[in-house]
Amino acid sequence: MTTPDTTVVIPLYDRFTALDVIGPYQMLALTPGVRVVFAAERPGPVLDDCRALRLTAVGLDEAPRPDVVVVPGGPGTVHVLDGALPAWLREVHPATRWTTSVCSGSLVLGAAGLIDGLRATTHYRHLDKLPLFGAVPAQERVVVERDARIVTAAGVSSGIDMALRLVEFLTDTRTAQAVQLWTEYDPRPPFDAGSPSSAPEDVVALAAEFETAALEAATRA
Amino acid sequence: MTTPDTTVVIPLYDRFTALDVIGPYQMLALTPGVRVVFAAERPGPVLDDCRALRLTAVGLDEAPRPDVVVVPGGPGTVHVLDGALPAWLREVHPATRWTTSVCSGSLVLGAAGLIDGLRATTHYRHLDKLPLFGAVPAQERVVVERDARIVTAAGVSSGIDMALRLVEFLTDTRTAQAVQLWTEYDPRPPFDAGSPSSAPEDVVALAAEFETAALEAATRA
Repeated sequence: MTTPDTTVVIPLYDRFTALDVIGPYQMLALTPGVRVVFAAERPGPVLDDCRALRLTAVGLDEAPRPDVVVVPGGPGTVHVLDGALPAWLREVHPATRWTTSVCSGSLVLGAAGLIDGLRATTHYRHLDKLPLFGAVPAQERVVVERDARIVTAAGVSSGIDMALRLVEFLTDTRTAQAVQLWTEYDPRPPFDAGSPSSAPEDVVALAAEFETAALEAATRA
Repeated sequence: MTTPDTTVVIPLYDRFTALDVIGPYQMLALTPGVRVVFAAERPGPVLDDCRALRLTAVGLDEAPRPDVVVVPGGPGTVHVLDGALPAWLREVHPATRWTTSVCSGSLVLGAAGLIDGLRATTHYRHLDKLPLFGAVPAQERVVVERDARIVTAAGVSSGIDMALRLVEFLTDTRTAQAVQLWTEYDPRPPFDAGSPSSAPEDVVALAAEFETAALEAATRA
């Protein structure tokens, strides 16, 4: 393998969203020469927003220096916007190749001051919050700000698309395509309701209820 | 919420593939009225095939009776085809609403005798093994055998498409669409290489090397 060793750190926090983490994890961890490390403010188990998935993380202070950072989203972001995670991101970002986010993870990049003046995306329910961090909201699935080495993805499942692009940046197109093939990522959603522009109105309202319930649960916590 | 309580059990084993598990988990765990439980032959942490993800599981013998079972795939299937997992599947299947698999998980259903005489799918690299279990290989992303209450999905990421269909079966179309929207599952793969029929030949060969390396690592283990 000619790929240089690349370390990806995925920071976790209480009430992250599972697929935000595992979509990119799967694509990156399969890539020859890439290792992925999960880290959290406190080492040990970290629970997702659905409270059924428990991942194990090392402490942020023990994490290796990352070449790539992927910050997942989730209702728990409300509790980490002014904590150790934005401080860690500010510290490691100058030496990363790519600092990235999925879903509301871009708000954490925002809290770290890393998207000021950039175009960025996030979960469609949070696009209006990006200007609070000086970013210009872009209704795109993946936004690459090459000069700033920042990549942001839209909601939850979009981290898969972002990660395939990252694999290409870190290796080459052929390797990224082989990862896509091995994971048979030839998606066939059974419905056409994956974005607020295509979903029926009553579905948009129901998904908003999911969001409100998850945020309320996180806020009470 | 009018959804009745539904218990989904996802059995894990050493060297499962992460996205096989978390794709369906995300869609099902978000669904109102559904709880998801991870179970394994021995309770405790279970490591994925990339050796960086550690999930926590209860013992199969402590797992609640499942309404739905999702068996993930992964190179570790080679070690569970004659173990406790097929026996457990045989025991619980008569009372499930749906017994399902992702990727090479269908080989475990096969070992349990659950796909004999049925159409089924699996990862494209394993389709030729389905007849060993009496199944008819179908080159489709999701195969629903309604009368037998068996659903099989193709490789890794296809579990997401399967799970959205399961959410519809368990609740209704509107709820499944709301889950799709909340997870912004409006996929935009950056390449058209997600199936062996669309990928360039050299990419098919490179993906085969990934598969061989993973299987060799699992066999040595």
